[in-house]
Amino acid sequence: MADKITPRAEDFSKWYQDIVLNARLADYSPVKGCMVIRPNGYSIWERIQAELDARIKEQGVRNAYFPLFIPESFLKKEAEHVEGFAPECAVVTYAGKKDLEERLIVRPTSETIINSMFSKWIQSYRDLPLLINQWANVVRWEMRTRLFLRTTEFLWQEGHTCHATFDEAEEMTRRMLRVYTQFSEDVLAMPVFFGMKTESEKFAGAYRTYCIEAMMQDKKALQAGTSHNLSQNFAKSFETKFLDQDGTEKLVYQTSWGVSTRLIGGLIMTHSDDRGLVLPPMVAQTHVVIIPIATKKPEQREKVLQACENLEKEIRAACESAGLPYKVGILIDRDETKQPGWKFFEYELLGMPLRIEIGPRDVDNGQAMLVRRDREGKTPVPLTEIPNRIPTELLDLQASLLARAREFRDSNTREVASYDELKTGLDQGGGFFIAGWSQDRAVEEKIKTETKATIRCILLDEEHEPMKTDLPCLINGKTDQNIKVIYARSY
Amino acid sequence: MADKITPRAEDFSKWYQDIVLNARLADYSPVKGCMVIRPNGYSIWERIQAELDARIKEQGVRNAYFPLFIPESFLKKEAEHVEGFAPECAVVTYAGKKDLEERLIVRPTSETIINSMFSKWIQSYRDLPLLINQWANVVRWEMRTRLFLRTTEFLWQEGHTCHATFDEAEEMTRRMLRVYTQFSEDVLAMPVFFGMKTESEKFAGAYRTYCIEAMMQDKKALQAGTSHNLSQNFAKSFETKFLDQDGTEKLVYQTSWGVSTRLIGGLIMTHSDDRGLVLPPMVAQTHVVIIPIATKKPEQREKVLQACENLEKEIRAACESAGLPYKVGILIDRDETKQPGWKFFEYELLGMPLRIEIGPRDVDNGQAMLVRRDREGKTPVPLTEIPNRIPTELLDLQASLLARAREFRDSNTREVASYDELKTGLDQGGGFFIAGWSQDRAVEEKIKTETKATIRCILLDEEHEPMKTDLPCLINGKTDQNIKVIYARSY
Repeated sequence: MADKITPRAEDFSKWYQDIVLNARLADYSPVKGCMVIRPNGYSIWERIQAELDARIKEQGVRNAYFPLFIPESFLKKEAEHVEGFAPECAVVTYAGKKDLEERLIVRPTSETIINSMFSKWIQSYRDLPLLINQWANVVRWEMRTRLFLRTTEFLWQEGHTCHATFDEAEEMTRRMLRVYTQFSEDVLAMPVFFGMKTESEKFAGAYRTYCIEAMMQDKKALQAGTSHNLSQNFAKSFETKFLDQDGTEKLVYQTSWGVSTRLIGGLIMTHSDDRGLVLPPMVAQTHVVIIPIATKKPEQREKVLQACENLEKEIRAACESAGLPYKVGILIDRDETKQPGWKFFEYELLGMPLRIEIGPRDVDNGQAMLVRRDREGKTPVPLTEIPNRIPTELLDLQASLLARAREFRDSNTREVASYDELKTGLDQGGGFFIAGWSQDRAVEEKIKTETKATIRCILLDEEHEPMKTDLPCLINGKTDQNIKVIYARSY
Repeated sequence: MADKITPRAEDFSKWYQDIVLNARLADYSPVKGCMVIRPNGYSIWERIQAELDARIKEQGVRNAYFPLFIPESFLKKEAEHVEGFAPECAVVTYAGKKDLEERLIVRPTSETIINSMFSKWIQSYRDLPLLINQWANVVRWEMRTRLFLRTTEFLWQEGHTCHATFDEAEEMTRRMLRVYTQFSEDVLAMPVFFGMKTESEKFAGAYRTYCIEAMMQDKKALQAGTSHNLSQNFAKSFETKFLDQDGTEKLVYQTSWGVSTRLIGGLIMTHSDDRGLVLPPMVAQTHVVIIPIATKKPEQREKVLQACENLEKEIRAACESAGLPYKVGILIDRDETKQPGWKFFEYELLGMPLRIEIGPRDVDNGQAMLVRRDREGKTPVPLTEIPNRIPTELLDLQASLLARAREFRDSNTREVASYDELKTGLDQGGGFFIAGWSQDRAVEEKIKTETKATIRCILLDEEHEPMKTDLPCLINGKTDQNIKVIYARSY
C-alpha cells in the first residue's frame, strides 16, 4: 500500500497527487479541469465548513444564496473586474432550446450579482452594516489544473458586506483576515503570514487586498485566503446607495473575502508524509481506529472484541468529559477479510490521528498498543490509562502539527539584502525571502520574469500599514522609503 | 405591517408571494427564473440540511461532490433521460475565450456524471453497496417560475447508490422514501401521502419512481420528494459493472433520490396564515423573542431589561435540560427605535414560534405575557413558570402544527366513484380524490387534459405494491384489476 506513494524528496508534485488519489480524497473527472471530491475529501470540507461557518457567524454575518448565473452586462460594469475575469469565464449561450438574448456567465465570484440585490435592499443607514456570506461553487476556466489547488470549478465561501464608511469597511476587511489567520492556525494547524497584496496581485476590482500565505513542504507559497476592501468601486457601478443620518445620499463601502477547497490542498502539503495523509484532529471526522488482532480461536476473538468495545465506550466517555472542541469519532475495524498489517498501512495512508492495536496477549497483559500518526513506533499503554490518554494525545497532536509546521516555515524564511542572495536562495531549495521593496512595479515584474518568484505579500505593522524597512530594494538598490515584502515561488 | 399580506381567501397565490417577499425569505433576481434566498429563508434551509443530512448519514450514506458540468454526450447515453431533460438544459458553449469542442450541460441532475465515476470506482462486489449523496445546485430552464416552488436554479440533495441486486436497490429506494416521509412529518410538520408515480410521471430514466405528496392550504398537491429505483438503466449506458462472488461480471442496480429548496415553499403553504409565516420550531433558528416594554423612566427600564435577561438565562437552562432535539435560539429585542406594537406584528410576520412581552407592571406582578404563533391572544404566565413552560410549548407547537395540517388534509381527501364526482369535487374547492384506475394511460391523459388534475401517486399496500381496489375506473368504468390512486391538481 505505502509503496504506491512517491517519496516527497523524489517528486513532490507526484507525491501530492499520489496522496490525493490513493487516500481517495479526490479524483479527476471527465470534464476538463473539474475534480470529483470523494467522501474522504468531502468529510474534510464538511469539518472546514462547520468550523469556519461558526466563526463567520460569530462576526454577525448571515448566510444567503445568490444565482449561479450572472448577466454578461453586469460583469462589464466594473472595468477592472471584467478585465481580470473575462479570460476565465464559462458562458451559457443556449438554454431551454433557444439562443439566449443575453449571455450568462457562470459566476467566477459574485460581487456583481450581489450588488444588484444590495442596491435594491439598502435604503437607509439603518440597513447598514449588511453582512452576508454564501457557500457556493464557482467556475474559473483554468488551463493548468491540479486537484484541490487549482480547478475549473471549486467550492468556497464568499462574504460580502456593506458599510457606511471607509473605516468600517477597512475594519471588517482586517477582521476577516484575522478570522482566516486564526482559523488556519487553530483548525488547519497551518501557520500563515498575513499581509497586503501589491497593486498587480490584488483582486480585480478591489481597492486593497489582504491575504494569508502558507509555506508548503516544498517551500513554495500557497495563497490560502483573501480579504478585499472594495471601497466604493462596485457601489459606484451598481449605485448601491443609502440615505445617511445627515439626510444625504451616499455610496456604501464594501468588502468581500473568501477561502476555498484549495485549503484541503494546503492541509495536505503542510502536514502529510511519505506514508500518506496526516490529518489534524480538528478536521478529522474519525479520530481513533481500534484494530482487533483476532486469532483463529473463537474464545480469544471474543475476548479481544469485548476489550475493543469496552475501550470504545470508555474513550467516548473520556472525550466527552474532556470537553474537546469537536465530536471524537471512534471506529472498531472488525473486517476479517483484511490482515492487521494491511490495515495499519491503510489507516496511515488515510491520516487517522490515533490507532489502537489490541491482541489476545495484550488483553491478558491489560494493555494495548497506541500509535500516533505524527510519530514513529508504537507505545504499549495500560488499558485503564488509554481512555484519558486519548483527548490529551489529540490535543497534543493538533498542537505538535502546528509547531512543526511553524518551525519548518520559520527555518525556511529569511531576510535577503541583494538580488543575488534571493536567486541563490531560490536555487538552493527555495523558501520565503523577506526583502525591501521600493514599491516600483518594474522591480516586481523583473524579478517575477527572471526567477518566477512573486511578492506574496507586503508585511504589515501594528497599525496594519505596510512595514517600513532599511533593507535595500533588490533591483534598484534604494534603501529609503522601502517596505518589507515576502518573495517566494508559489502555487 | 400585516396589511401588506393579501388574505389567503382573496388570492392564495398572491398571499404566498407576499409572505415570501415580506418575511424576506427570498427575492426575485435579475436573472430570469433564478431567485435569491435571503438570510431568513436560508436559515430555514440550513435547518433542513442539518436535520436531513444527519438522517441520510444514519443510513450509511456519505457526502461527496461531483462537477457542475456534464458533457453533452453523457446526457445522451440514456435515451429516456435525455428526452426528459433536454428541453430544460442550460448549455455552456464558450469558455476561456474559446468555443468549446463539446458543449457542457449545467447539471439538471447528476446520474450521468456520477455513473461515469462509479464505473471507474466499482470493481468488485466488495465495493458494494456504494452509497453517496451530494448537496448541490442544479439548473432546469423553466418558463413559469415561482419562488421556492419552481425556479431555474435550485438547491437540493441528490443521493446515488449502487447495489448488487435489484432487491437491494428496491429496498434502498423504499428506505429513502420512508426517511423523507418521516423527515417531512417530524421536522417540517408536513403530513404526506407516499406512493408510486405512474409511467408518464416517473423520472426520466427510472425503472420506478416513488414520491411523497403533501396538500397545501389551497388543497393543491405539492410533490415534496422523490426516490427512484433506476434498476440497470444507467449502469447499462455507462457500463457500471462489478465482479460478483460467483466470478461473473454484472451490471449494478442503482437508486437516486432527492428533495430541494421547494420544501421551503411547501412549509409556507402548509402552516402560514394571513398574519405571515408560521414556522415549526424544528426548522427555526430563533424560537423565542423577548420584547421589553420599556418606559421613559430609567429605573423602570432597568428593571424590565433585568427581568428579560434573567428570563433568557433561565429559559436557556430549562431548554438544555429538557433535551430538545435542537438548540433553542432566544433573542431579546432591545431596539428602542421601534414601538412594541410594530415588533409584535413583525415577529408574527417572521413566524417566530414564541413571544414574551414584559413591561414594568408585569415585573411588579411577577408575570409576563406569553404568545404562541399558532394561537390567538396572549396568556399571562408567572415569571417562575415561564422557563419550564418554553420547551413544553415548543414541543406542543410542533405537534399541533402537524395535527392541524393532517386534519386539514384528511378532511379534504375523499374517495370518488365517478368522473362527475371528481369534476364536482375539483370545482368545489379541490382536494385529494382517491379513485380506482385501470392503469390505462389514455384515462390518465384524458382526465389531465380536461380537469388539470393528475395522478399524484399510486397508493401502496403493506408490501409496497400498488393497492388493489374495487373503486371503478373514472373513465372506462372497469371495476376489476383496478389500483388505488390519488387525483389532484398540483404545483
